[in-house]
Amino acid sequence: MTQPLLLSGRYLLTLDAAHPCIEDGALLARDGRIAAIGTRAELAARHPGVRALHTPHGLIMPGLVNTHTHAAMALFRGLADDLPLMEWLQDYIFPVEATLTADMVRVGALLSCCEMIRSGTTSFCDMYLFAEAVAQATEQSGMRAWLGEAVYDFPSPCYGEPANGVRLTRDLIARFRQHPLIHAISVAHAVYTCSPDLLVQMAELARQEDVLLALHLAENAEEDQSCRERYGSSPVQHLERLGILGPKLLAAHCVTPDAADTQLLARRGVKVAHCPQSNMKLGSGIAPIDSFLQAGICVSLGTDGSASNNTVDMFAEMNVMAKIHKARRCDPLQVTAEESLHAATLGGARALGAEAHIGSLQKGKAADCIVVDMDQPHLTPLYNPVSQLVYAARGSDVLHSMVNGRLLMQDRKVLSLDEAGIMAEARALAGHFARVAKKRQA
Amino acid sequence: MTQPLLLSGRYLLTLDAAHPCIEDGALLARDGRIAAIGTRAELAARHPGVRALHTPHGLIMPGLVNTHTHAAMALFRGLADDLPLMEWLQDYIFPVEATLTADMVRVGALLSCCEMIRSGTTSFCDMYLFAEAVAQATEQSGMRAWLGEAVYDFPSPCYGEPANGVRLTRDLIARFRQHPLIHAISVAHAVYTCSPDLLVQMAELARQEDVLLALHLAENAEEDQSCRERYGSSPVQHLERLGILGPKLLAAHCVTPDAADTQLLARRGVKVAHCPQSNMKLGSGIAPIDSFLQAGICVSLGTDGSASNNTVDMFAEMNVMAKIHKARRCDPLQVTAEESLHAATLGGARALGAEAHIGSLQKGKAADCIVVDMDQPHLTPLYNPVSQLVYAARGSDVLHSMVNGRLLMQDRKVLSLDEAGIMAEARALAGHFARVAKKRQA
Ligand SMILES: [Zn+2]
Ligand SMILES: [Zn+2]
Repeated sequence: MTQPLLLSGRYLLTLDAAHPCIEDGALLARDGRIAAIGTRAELAARHPGVRALHTPHGLIMPGLVNTHTHAAMALFRGLADDLPLMEWLQDYIFPVEATLTADMVRVGALLSCCEMIRSGTTSFCDMYLFAEAVAQATEQSGMRAWLGEAVYDFPSPCYGEPANGVRLTRDLIARFRQHPLIHAISVAHAVYTCSPDLLVQMAELARQEDVLLALHLAENAEEDQSCRERYGSSPVQHLERLGILGPKLLAAHCVTPDAADTQLLARRGVKVAHCPQSNMKLGSGIAPIDSFLQAGICVSLGTDGSASNNTVDMFAEMNVMAKIHKARRCDPLQVTAEESLHAATLGGARALGAEAHIGSLQKGKAADCIVVDMDQPHLTPLYNPVSQLVYAARGSDVLHSMVNGRLLMQDRKVLSLDEAGIMAEARALAGHFARVAKKRQA
Repeated sequence: MTQPLLLSGRYLLTLDAAHPCIEDGALLARDGRIAAIGTRAELAARHPGVRALHTPHGLIMPGLVNTHTHAAMALFRGLADDLPLMEWLQDYIFPVEATLTADMVRVGALLSCCEMIRSGTTSFCDMYLFAEAVAQATEQSGMRAWLGEAVYDFPSPCYGEPANGVRLTRDLIARFRQHPLIHAISVAHAVYTCSPDLLVQMAELARQEDVLLALHLAENAEEDQSCRERYGSSPVQHLERLGILGPKLLAAHCVTPDAADTQLLARRGVKVAHCPQSNMKLGSGIAPIDSFLQAGICVSLGTDGSASNNTVDMFAEMNVMAKIHKARRCDPLQVTAEESLHAATLGGARALGAEAHIGSLQKGKAADCIVVDMDQPHLTPLYNPVSQLVYAARGSDVLHSMVNGRLLMQDRKVLSLDEAGIMAEARALAGHFARVAKKRQA
């Protein structure tokens, strides 16, 4: 176990229900948990001699929770952009994914972990191929994750036939059952890539094992239309008919739900992973988050993979979330800075069923937090910390990151990973992917 | 004059017509201009003994051009957000602006200059109160700017009656006529704050002095509607009737133009300063940039002031510009990374009538450039430099900045300004503004 650590700064933002901003605040991390919260003076007096990390201009806050990503896709960052969706998928993403190996996925996930740690994310939810390699990378990074093997109707470069995917998921869940930081989950890729039978199987598995079921849902007009043509219902209604909607379903995107779909999502307690930047860049549209919030749906925030964003910086995602809905409705009251920050912290925790452990700084919760350097021109002056974090801060403003009481980054040096080595490995792989994509073009 | 300097890096992106990405590229800055461009080996051989700054993982590119900002409004960053437009203006912005002095504006402009230099902007176009104080701050910073005193129908805390504003502008233009870096321009605040007579006076002045006329135009539905009610025409048509539309008009926002307005803007050669993030945050909407580009209108990029963005980071602005139009049209082909980068460089140069001097790296142009650190997880791997700059880079990735051959920042240390002192002055003023805003609430 790591030593106790007294973390202190100019401000501490708990984001708990009382929501105080403690000046000269501090928290004591012990045995992976938050043992105490208060002012620096109080905690230092109560815990003399404890190892301390004080950041005079730092703001301490909960680590960010990214509820939808494909970490390994960092390998494809900028491989292809500004293309029609089908050309992007069929000429670039699918061909390079067909050549993936577990080791490549491990390198890509490590690269994303470096980036996530550097930009303030402490927990993430991942779905991809070779989930075991993602787990291995995550373990090395020290981050907290919910992750699963993406299962769909066609053969996977990882597990071959779909039936093997179901088995693999069951094994993965069993293997990580006792892990302190990694939770294996059930993943069905999407309504348009999974038969009703496969969807039901993955949902059954999730229910039996009492884990999350994560999937892409109602991402764009094409999905909506094809679902209506094949099944005579919207993607949301399709899942309802299959009995899959429920409080342990984490649905990424949800751009196309109409009012009836929204009521259904709310009634069943489905959790939404809002991915505004990916939805923008792929031309999917803008999710009706205002309706979701009004209906009481739990909205969390995700970056999606770096092939469609092209970063996993949750500060950028919060910033866009707080602005895009104002543009959509021509209304500056839509989605406040508070609501956006909530989606990236407690909303994420709740979406993952981990509200009791992460998402806010409270005694007894896990010691997952970050320290933001507020002593910079673009964060000056400071009238309102929440506004500053959402509308002005960038991922690069994060100085330190702690997960489960362990410092993963200090003064912008990632302690848990060999960044230079990982970047070198990723660069070497990029040559291979560029050749695969080029060959396809020829 | 500053010493010659040989700047070299892993890549050099000229953004000129041929648009090469020179590997191991370099440029020689001499007497404020680009004396040579080539590979590092070539230039080092041709210019032995010249002072050199080599960045092994650096990408050298033109400095970014921000064509619409109010630098001093950095003082109001986060003072009030998520409010109805009129409440935000009347209860916060107008009351605090009424208390402004030249010295406060100087401090705010210095703060923005720090932020702009740190995030890759080398040229900007500013309109605000106490323009002379903005000029003073700009001169101190070493940046290049086009700036003017905002003139409107009501009394200004700077010049009092509108007639004085016209005189002040004429004096300012005369005084900066020979300045190497600062260009004074004519500024009319907007159609809804300036009488037709005042608009015509400021346009006349611009014509006589052969300088730009900058204004806010067609920003939102309220402006469009009130203009139609008062003058029976859209804001664009209103300016056409007054004879003000022309190639030296730089119009910020342009969110509401319809097809007829767009044709008019194109025919008259009006330049547009697109401010997507400000338009989003204030709930103004999304400008029809796709139609503008199709009509051949010169589109440049602006951040607007930090009261409505809340930063002046042009990398963030480029990123949003390349995505927001894809969301608006549900079409991933709208506004490419190339088009966004162009708006932030050559488009900006052209909008300011400075295409011959800035916006691309070419022999004979001013030595205004930045060096971006590409050796970071979120910029790895690198398939396409343009995609990486627009979709993945952040302002904080800029290592060095040079304007007119002078290094303004090296290794993220701003050389021309005392950042700590400026931040301290801004923090002290923030207390005053918070009190003014609070008093108004009471
Ligand atoms: Zn996804
Ligand atoms: Zn403006």
